[in-house]
Amino acid sequence: MTDDDKGVTVLGLGAMGSALAGAFLAAGRPVTVWNRTPGKEAALVAAGAATTGTAEAALAANRLVVVCLQDHRSVHEVLDPVGDALAGRVLVNLTTGTPEQARELDAWARERGAEHLDGGIMAVPPMIGTPGAFVLYSGARGVFDAHRATLDALGGSRFAGADPGAASLQDLALLSGMYGMFGGALQAFALIRSAGGSATEFAPVLREWLGSMSDFVTGSAEQIDTGDYGTGVDATLAMQAASYVHLVEVAESQGVGTELLLPLAGLMDRRVADGHGHEDITSVIELLVGRRSLNEIEGREN
Amino acid sequence: MTDDDKGVTVLGLGAMGSALAGAFLAAGRPVTVWNRTPGKEAALVAAGAATTGTAEAALAANRLVVVCLQDHRSVHEVLDPVGDALAGRVLVNLTTGTPEQARELDAWARERGAEHLDGGIMAVPPMIGTPGAFVLYSGARGVFDAHRATLDALGGSRFAGADPGAASLQDLALLSGMYGMFGGALQAFALIRSAGGSATEFAPVLREWLGSMSDFVTGSAEQIDTGDYGTGVDATLAMQAASYVHLVEVAESQGVGTELLLPLAGLMDRRVADGHGHEDITSVIELLVGRRSLNEIEGREN
Ligand SMILES: NC(=O)c1ccc[n+]([C@@H]2O[C@H](COP(=O)([O-])OP(=O)(O)OC[C@H]3O[C@@H](n4cnc5c(N)ncnc54)[C@H](OP(=O)(O)O)[C@@H]3O)[C@@H](O)[C@H]2O)c1
Ligand SMILES: NC(=O)c1ccc[n+]([C@@H]2O[C@H](COP(=O)([O-])OP(=O)(O)OC[C@H]3O[C@@H](n4cnc5c(N)ncnc54)[C@H](OP(=O)(O)O)[C@@H]3O)[C@@H](O)[C@H]2O)c1
Repeated sequence: MTDDDKGVTVLGLGAMGSALAGAFLAAGRPVTVWNRTPGKEAALVAAGAATTGTAEAALAANRLVVVCLQDHRSVHEVLDPVGDALAGRVLVNLTTGTPEQARELDAWARERGAEHLDGGIMAVPPMIGTPGAFVLYSGARGVFDAHRATLDALGGSRFAGADPGAASLQDLALLSGMYGMFGGALQAFALIRSAGGSATEFAPVLREWLGSMSDFVTGSAEQIDTGDYGTGVDATLAMQAASYVHLVEVAESQGVGTELLLPLAGLMDRRVADGHGHEDITSVIELLVGRRSLNEIEGREN
Repeated sequence: MTDDDKGVTVLGLGAMGSALAGAFLAAGRPVTVWNRTPGKEAALVAAGAATTGTAEAALAANRLVVVCLQDHRSVHEVLDPVGDALAGRVLVNLTTGTPEQARELDAWARERGAEHLDGGIMAVPPMIGTPGAFVLYSGARGVFDAHRATLDALGGSRFAGADPGAASLQDLALLSGMYGMFGGALQAFALIRSAGGSATEFAPVLREWLGSMSDFVTGSAEQIDTGDYGTGVDATLAMQAASYVHLVEVAESQGVGTELLLPLAGLMDRRVADGHGHEDITSVIELLVGRRSLNEIEGREN
């Protein structure tokens, strides 16, 4: 369970797999790489990596095997034919997938005598190996601890939980947050452009504003965990729902699409209609999770 | 056109109007306040403000008049009956509204012999008067410059443009960005809660992640202004659209609402289908603004 040989095999040399292999090399690890379509290994081999003609030979080269392929299906397409070669290996799957897929692969790998960690990469390829990148891992804590020193070459390593699906869940939650922010920023820029303004001039103001409004994350987390959305509210849901109408109106009058705006308007209006207009906007989360399921969780926890 | 008497009248003492009046007082300005429903002025009067029984008397007290009411309609309900008292006044309307409403009020006020600035407050009431708050203003630059020293008591003052609707447009664009981020954060927390996780424990990770992903704002602004979405792309739209499916799947399997996720999925898929899968996700803005209108803008600018 220790990083005995400190070598790493990387299966998959897309944009991300190549960045991962490069970061292990840069950290001084012996690296063996394999990719379905040959040719993508050239730069890595020039930088010192070994390569093999088959996935099976790559698996044989190192105990620690990092997999980064397109999706869950491609992971099985690569690993199913070489399942016997997995015994005694530590499989770290950094392919994006759902918690259920992570749990399935965990059971599948353990049946074949491998240890398994599932991971979620929170970075784009150029960030790999820099302090801005981090990777979430879930599975057996001991396996994580044993290989953390090697994995730290990719960026910060964060343990998300023993449930093999935990890293995926947190990964997808973070991506959900990110895409919300991206959608909001694009809506903002669309308005500015519709009036002939410069996105580049507007960007610093938007960025500063989003930075200062990210206090919301901290404040709303506390409200969500306590279920108290009504104490010390600066801007009530009713007031916000009323002024949100202006966002839709201005988009319409500028000829800008409103599809990204309307769903939150619907949630706010429903929550106000249900008598929660005096609460914080965070209370709309009740319509996403549902009080019933929150109660079930609470029941399960107690 | 100078800040001769440096006194300010504030019409409207809701949560925001009260904060504005308090900040002017804290900056040492003589302040006169009025609110439709009496009683809300008590704390301000205790802190040194004067009050009047009528809006007309409040208008007479100072040249600079800041209005912060519920909406455009309430602004006219207060000002229409006292239009004659506006001559020679500087009306600064900080009520949230659309660019069209701002232009309408500008023409209306100038017909009555008043100068007018429209403003958008980028802060919640407790932030007013702190460095984190800023207010966007639009209208005649000279009027802004003449009263800026007084208005700076509220937070940073930013001139948005000579079009009276410019501050409103930028205000609503910033709010669009903020609500996107809020919706994304709530979606993220809903996933975490659906699995029994703690929002409070997850919040620092989410916040750090959103902070590091806000580079997107800067990068996409340049792409939008140049119309080049295809150079140096780290994560293609096609790849992102494919992994976005996991966000929807995990929400569904956790019983979390998907309404906030689906519209961006639709935009991404349409853009990929239109042959832009190799571009950055920023290119979906073309479906919000529409290439036709972007070309029209370019034509207008050249
Ligand atoms: N790029 C990012 O910004 C980013 C960020 C976080 C997470 N991720 C995740 O990292 C993973 C890889 O992403 P990427 O950007 O590297 O994608 P990519 O550049 O499109 O590479 C895809 C890789 O998967 C391989 N592959 C696909 N189907 C296969 C199959 N049936 N059998 C064997 N190999 C197969 C490809 O091999 P061939 O060369 O033979 O086609 C290639 O190595 C994805 O799950 C992605 O969600 C990416
Ligand atoms: N609160 C925020 O976080 C925030 C942030 C940015 C911008 N704003 C904007 O600031 C403005 C005021 O917000 P607020 O938070 O102060 O709202 P609020 O607490 O609900 O106060 C509304 C104010 O409008 C007055 N009013 C409403 N209808 C009226 C009418 N027909 N005639 C006369 N007065 C009327 C109310 O007077 P009564 O006391 O007589 O009802 C009260 O003074 C809004 O446009 C809002 O969008 C607020």
